[in-house]
Amino acid sequence: MSEKFDPKALWSLSYGLYIVSSMFEGKTNGQIVNAVIQVTAEPPQIAVSLNKETLTHLLVEKSGLLSVSILDQNTPMTMIGLFGFRTGREVDKMSRCGHKLGIDGCPVVIDHTVATIEGKVVKSIDVGTHTIFIAEVVSGELLTDETPMTYQYYHTVLKGKASDKAPTFRGGQPKKKREEKAMKFVCDICGWVYDPEAGDPDNGVEPGTAFEDIPDNWTCPVCGVGKDEFSPEE
Amino acid sequence: MSEKFDPKALWSLSYGLYIVSSMFEGKTNGQIVNAVIQVTAEPPQIAVSLNKETLTHLLVEKSGLLSVSILDQNTPMTMIGLFGFRTGREVDKMSRCGHKLGIDGCPVVIDHTVATIEGKVVKSIDVGTHTIFIAEVVSGELLTDETPMTYQYYHTVLKGKASDKAPTFRGGQPKKKREEKAMKFVCDICGWVYDPEAGDPDNGVEPGTAFEDIPDNWTCPVCGVGKDEFSPEE
Repeated sequence: MSEKFDPKALWSLSYGLYIVSSMFEGKTNGQIVNAVIQVTAEPPQIAVSLNKETLTHLLVEKSGLLSVSILDQNTPMTMIGLFGFRTGREVDKMSRCGHKLGIDGCPVVIDHTVATIEGKVVKSIDVGTHTIFIAEVVSGELLTDETPMTYQYYHTVLKGKASDKAPTFRGGQPKKKREEKAMKFVCDICGWVYDPEAGDPDNGVEPGTAFEDIPDNWTCPVCGVGKDEFSPEE
Repeated sequence: MSEKFDPKALWSLSYGLYIVSSMFEGKTNGQIVNAVIQVTAEPPQIAVSLNKETLTHLLVEKSGLLSVSILDQNTPMTMIGLFGFRTGREVDKMSRCGHKLGIDGCPVVIDHTVATIEGKVVKSIDVGTHTIFIAEVVSGELLTDETPMTYQYYHTVLKGKASDKAPTFRGGQPKKKREEKAMKFVCDICGWVYDPEAGDPDNGVEPGTAFEDIPDNWTCPVCGVGKDEFSPEE
């Protein structure tokens, strides 16, 4: 690596936000992906970069099938958290989300989805931590005329973060200790913010509860990690 | 291809707008590309899909070097036309555009550029009409804090079109015959619009000149094609 490398240069590349899903021997899963591009027009083929450690990678590798759901701008953080920060080895994601079966039996998420693309893998390229799957498009449907979510919108408006398995992972932030009372706390994993004024009433935490007073078994409502993964907001 | 294929599904994928440049044995060139993604974080690698017929493809293939210039939202259509719709076999693009030499001697466009990325090709994947080049990033610089141009902005605000060599080419439009006098005419190649009220004074066409009265040797100020490539605006 050259001395002239500023990682922010890569952060200016533009992406959307997608759920890539697959299925093998009855096991289904899906995950948030930003690295999806169309690579040829005739025939239409797409490329998808997936981290080798994910369950979705395993299912795509085994079945040769994948679907892409292009998320709309109103996709809630809880849905992004479920697909982006939880593993399908611990939670059945499809059971918590509207989906259909694609023409090859592959699940296709349709909640908050602008358009769906189904593909059959024709090539797999090992690029180290990730595999790039090249898939020929076998089906494509436009579901709504909503605005697609962009990665830029996710980062700047929703204050979302990249998973440590994303090809665009930007590294962790150093933790800081501050006066905790009545302060907002940020999930280090998914970026969700706990506001003491609002509490988390859906999960039994009343408005007005300081972060330190939340029960220790409480978990992030978006990505499910424990209190020790939260840091005081800057 | 399935009957359930609506090409508009693919149009909802999000991209930026970039110039990919290269050099081999003293010959330089660059072209507009939308299909650029980061595919791994450690080490940082990017993937770029290039049409095999382009000069830039040939130069990248021969040299194993490429640079990516991330264009800003104010990039003029004339610059996009030069790099997106002209071939480097006929015009020396770099001589018409601000650029620097990268650390490996590869040209890097810096006009209207938010950030630059330089890479060395580590893999080339044949995907039919295009090759996907995987490049390890050897340099990256943030040049400005301007807003990056998105493909969405290019299509909807600037009314730009995709080149027939783009992986996202959407096909040609059928020509229609209409009353031509005082009508606006659209370039079928690049999407630039001739407005008779404005004329094209930079190229000797006075405001108020009907399209039919423009001299036959006049060419599109953006992409350089002749009058016969224009159609009446819908």
